[in-house]
Formats: sequence, structure tokens, C-alpha cells
Amino acid sequence: ALGGVASLMFGASFAQSDHSAVENKGAETPSAVAVVPSDVPMRERMTRMVRDTQAAITQAISEIDGTPFREDEWQRPGGGGGWSRVLQDGNVFEKAGVNVSVVYGTMAPAAVREMNSRGKNLDASGPLPFFAVGISLVIHPHNPMVPTVHCNYRYFETMDKEGKPVSWWFGGGADLTPSYLFEEDAVHFHRVHKEACDRADPTFYTRFKKWCDKYFVIEHRKESRGVGGIFFDDLDEKDPDTLFAFVKDCADAFLKAYIPIVLARKDLPFTPEQKIWQQVRRGRYVEFNLVYDRGTKFGLQSHGRIESILMSLPLTARWMYDHHPEPGSPEDKLLQVLKNPRDWVS
Amino acid sequence: ALGGVASLMFGASFAQSDHSAVENKGAETPSAVAVVPSDVPMRERMTRMVRDTQAAITQAISEIDGTPFREDEWQRPGGGGGWSRVLQDGNVFEKAGVNVSVVYGTMAPAAVREMNSRGKNLDASGPLPFFAVGISLVIHPHNPMVPTVHCNYRYFETMDKEGKPVSWWFGGGADLTPSYLFEEDAVHFHRVHKEACDRADPTFYTRFKKWCDKYFVIEHRKESRGVGGIFFDDLDEKDPDTLFAFVKDCADAFLKAYIPIVLARKDLPFTPEQKIWQQVRRGRYVEFNLVYDRGTKFGLQSHGRIESILMSLPLTARWMYDHHPEPGSPEDKLLQVLKNPRDWVS
Repeated sequence: ALGGVASLMFGASFAQSDHSAVENKGAETPSAVAVVPSDVPMRERMTRMVRDTQAAITQAISEIDGTPFREDEWQRPGGGGGWSRVLQDGNVFEKAGVNVSVVYGTMAPAAVREMNSRGKNLDASGPLPFFAVGISLVIHPHNPMVPTVHCNYRYFETMDKEGKPVSWWFGGGADLTPSYLFEEDAVHFHRVHKEACDRADPTFYTRFKKWCDKYFVIEHRKESRGVGGIFFDDLDEKDPDTLFAFVKDCADAFLKAYIPIVLARKDLPFTPEQKIWQQVRRGRYVEFNLVYDRGTKFGLQSHGRIESILMSLPLTARWMYDHHPEPGSPEDKLLQVLKNPRDWVS
Repeated sequence: ALGGVASLMFGASFAQSDHSAVENKGAETPSAVAVVPSDVPMRERMTRMVRDTQAAITQAISEIDGTPFREDEWQRPGGGGGWSRVLQDGNVFEKAGVNVSVVYGTMAPAAVREMNSRGKNLDASGPLPFFAVGISLVIHPHNPMVPTVHCNYRYFETMDKEGKPVSWWFGGGADLTPSYLFEEDAVHFHRVHKEACDRADPTFYTRFKKWCDKYFVIEHRKESRGVGGIFFDDLDEKDPDTLFAFVKDCADAFLKAYIPIVLARKDLPFTPEQKIWQQVRRGRYVEFNLVYDRGTKFGLQSHGRIESILMSLPLTARWMYDHHPEPGSPEDKLLQVLKNPRDWVS
């Protein structure tokens, strides 16, 4: 499965793209991560892991929808590239984008200083060699009773001139964005992620749940994007093997956390008014991603592949002037939770 | 008509809002600017002018649509407030928002330094008293053959502790955003604005047309938002009376520039595919406004009234993955012009 990555990392062509419909390409083990010996470099173990996770998730989503994903392999002019898989206007899903990227090159001192400003201590005296690998996905369903979901897991390394790792960390998380609140869905999503956290460290869930609530806020609306989940960044407080196992565990948790919710809600009836409310919430999703999301902003500024960066945007969205749900309505009930994040599991 | 402004400027209540359907409230002369003696302070002359312009434009749009605008009067906690007029989901227009704001207070040194970074020389040693008045509008029609339009005219003053003006300038412009290119519409829109520019200064049109092309660019797409128009800021190179007359002339030009285009295109037939392309272009409009537009970013950061700031967003928008029109198609013809801005009048 790594042939593509290797050719991509050392290939000379720029920003090319070829696409084809795929069910499950580029991974031998769609539903479980291949056992990779721990003497294999972390960048390679992480690459295999996210690529296998991409295969497993796209297969599961594709089976529910009855529609294959399309895959685009792309290359980044500065070094590396990735695979974007998209299912658009399917039977169950309006838009599902699952992206893996493996990029490397040198970071400008300005970008290094920005990283240092959030607590890093990297060498900003000149261009800094780096390597980054990650999976990122957003799934927007048609039915307003099925929540939108996002997850992202990534590994970052900086190197000296000989290519030896100097600094490394993991980041990621998963969060749920319903238009209509089913409390048991929020509880289930949080519980599955809490279990993955608890297996690694008893403090992780509480810390990363709070971090998620703090990060996914639409500041100008004074409301959260959704009912949260977990979020972490700059994670290097344990040895790499332990943290890799934690991140893999979280990535494996995704399908367990989301699929049962989809299956329980996808055939529920809904009214045109409920569809409109979903569209209004989609507009809020766009506001968060374009105004606040670090990954989107970094991608747009660093001339990443636009289609892969903006894959997270919904197929359709709506902005109604001064729209306020009736107090006590199901729409208002969601808003109250978005304004006052709740503890879903204890 | 200034009773509302006066009560607003000296009123003590915060962020209240009351709304009612209006046809033409708060202006005695809807279709022409009242003659205000030139010994009246510029802030008051400009306030009357933009309020009268708002009345004239909403009346004209409302008559074409057959739907009244709703007006919300709002107050800004830091000082001042405004009137937002909105027509949503009408017969001809999907969403039309025409906002007047009259705000004042003190700017934080950080905001002053940001203004200085674009060439100003303001006192950043402490909070700086300011006064700002402006009109801002965006109109999104239903029919994809009718272009979206935006215009904005504003006056800004900074003062010493006694309230005497220290520095002042005008800013503004108007630009057209079609989904389908009718060259004669772009020519007409530019010609009307060129005439207003030429009456003030023979260099204005060339300079402000270029400035518009440079400002309204969706950097990450490497395409313009539309076919341009005029844009200027920090304008203080002539005496205030002359520049006020110029800005008033531009504001008067708006209806002459836009209404004939609406009337010529609003009843043209269109296909579902053409509607989808319009929705994709609406998505691009959202991208520009949320990622790049100075007014929107300033408004969101400075805790302005969210509904008035985001009034510019379309009712509906769409993001299709990796969407590219067929070479040579009408959609592609528009894209080529957005990638290579053209001179419409010479």
C-alpha cells in the first residue's frame, strides 16, 4: 500500500490529479490496521494507519449509501501529496469527503514562529524541514435527523538537515454536529471516544472534551458548532509508541461512534421546515470553517489543494436574516445546548 | 429624518432592535438627496445622504419585487447604531440587504495601528475618538441571468478630545457579480460609474477600477468575485465638499447602473443546471466575504451586529467538489473573465 506514497514523496511532477471511482483501493486491510513492526519509522506507521482508516471508513459509508467514492490522487508542489475520496449527492449522504495527506518540505520562519507562539520551541532561524501525515473527514447527510460528523488525526515531525527527527507531536479529534438533538446520540458518540481515551490515560477524556468545546466555537454567534467530542494538539507527553496506539484507537473508534447513529436516524421522516433548519445549521458550519478553522486557514494560506481543503463544506447551505427558532421548539433546544456545552458522560 | 440618528447617538439603551415592514420610512426625499447647506457638519450631511440613498434604493427594489423591505433599527453598545433593511425570498430577489450605520466611540490603539499600517498617520498613543457613517448593500436575485450587486459608501473621522475633526476620509465603490456574462451589462455598469468618476476627476475611474479588480479577488481560487466596478478608500486628496459631491454622485449612480440590468434579465428563462451554476457562484461569494472582506472581518472582530454584517450572504449557496465548467461553455466564458479582468469601457 505504500508504493503510492513512496512514488508521491519522491516523484517530480507537480499538482497533477487523476480520478477514478473506487470502493476500496490502496489498502490491504480495510477494517483493521495492519501490524507494522515498531522499528518502522513513525511517519511510515502513521501513513499506513491513516490510509487503512480511510479505506475502512469509505467502505462503510459507501455500503450504507450504495454509492462508490471517487478518489483523486494529488501532489503538492512543495513536496508530498495525498488522496481525496469524495461521495457527493448520494442516497444517504449529501457530501462525504475523506482526505489523507502526506506532505513534507520546509516551513518558512514565519510559520515556525506561529507554531512557537502556541508553545512550541522550534528553530526559527531559517527554513525548517518538516513532515506531516494525517486523515481528515467531514460527512454531511441528507436527512436533518442524522448529524454531520468531522474527524481528523495527524502526526507532525520537524527534522535537522540530516533528516533526523528533532521534534514530533500528534493531534486530532472527532466531533458531532446535529441539526436536531437526540441526547442518546451525543452520549453514545462521547462514550465511545471516552473509552478510547480512558484506555490511554484517565485524564485524556476530560481534558480533550474541554479542548473540543473551546476550539469549535463560532465566536461571533457565541455558540458551539456542535455537541463536541474530543480535540487535542501538540501531544508529545508520552512515548511515541504509546501515543500512536492511542491515536489509532481513536481512529478505530470513529465507525463505532458514528455508524449506529446513521443507521438509527437515516430513515426518520422530516418536514420541509426541518430541512430548512438543517440548511441554516449548514451555513453556521461554513462560517466556522471559513472564519475560524485553523486547518482551513492554514491550507488556504499555504496554497494547499483547494478542492481537498474545501471538501469539508456542505453541498448546500442557507443564510436567513435574523432567524431565531421559537423558544422551547426542538430547534431552540439544540441552540441552548450549543450556547451551554453539556457534559454527556461522566 | 435626523431625529432617529440624534436619539440613537445620544440614547443610552444597548443593542435593542425593533422591526416593522416599511416601504419608505425615515426619509423625506426618497429619490433625490435633500439640499443641505454646506455649513452643516460633514457627518450630518453624509448621514442624511446615505439615509436618503437607502430610501431611494429600497423603494426601487421593492417596487420591482412587489414586496416591502423589513427595517430593523439597532444600537451599538460602544456608540451609535443603524438601520438594516432586508427583503428576503421575494418574487425577483432572493435576498436584498441595505444597511445604514452611524457609529462612533473610541478605537483601541491596536485598531489605530492597523489603519496606520495601510498608510494613515493617526495617534496610536491612546484610545482614539472616531465617527463613521456609511451605507452598504448586497442584492442577490433569484434568476441566474440577473447579476448580484454590491455597493458601499462611507465617511470616517477621527477627533481630538474636544471632538474637533483631526483626520477624515471617504471610501466606497460598487461592483457587479454575474453568474452568466452579458457583456453589455458589464459595459453599462462600468460606464455609469465612469461618468460619475469623470465628473469629479479624470484620473478617478482608471485608478478606482484597478483598485476594485485588485480588492475583490478570491486569492485561493485565483479568480475575481465578479466583473468589478469601482473601489476607493482613504480618499482625502480634495476638499471635503468636492469629495462629498463625488460620493453622492456615485451613490446616485447606483440605481441607474443596476435597475436597467434587472429589468432586462429578470424574466429570461433558465434551466435547473443554470440555477445550480448560480448556486456554485453564490458559494464563491460566501468564500470572499468570510475569508477576505475587510468590512466583514472588522465587523465580526469588533462585535458589530451579526445579522447586519452577514446580511451580505446569499439565502442559498452550494459547494460541489472539483466542479469545472466545460471549456467554451457560457459558465467557462464567465470564469475566463474572472481570471483575466477586462477593461469594459475606455
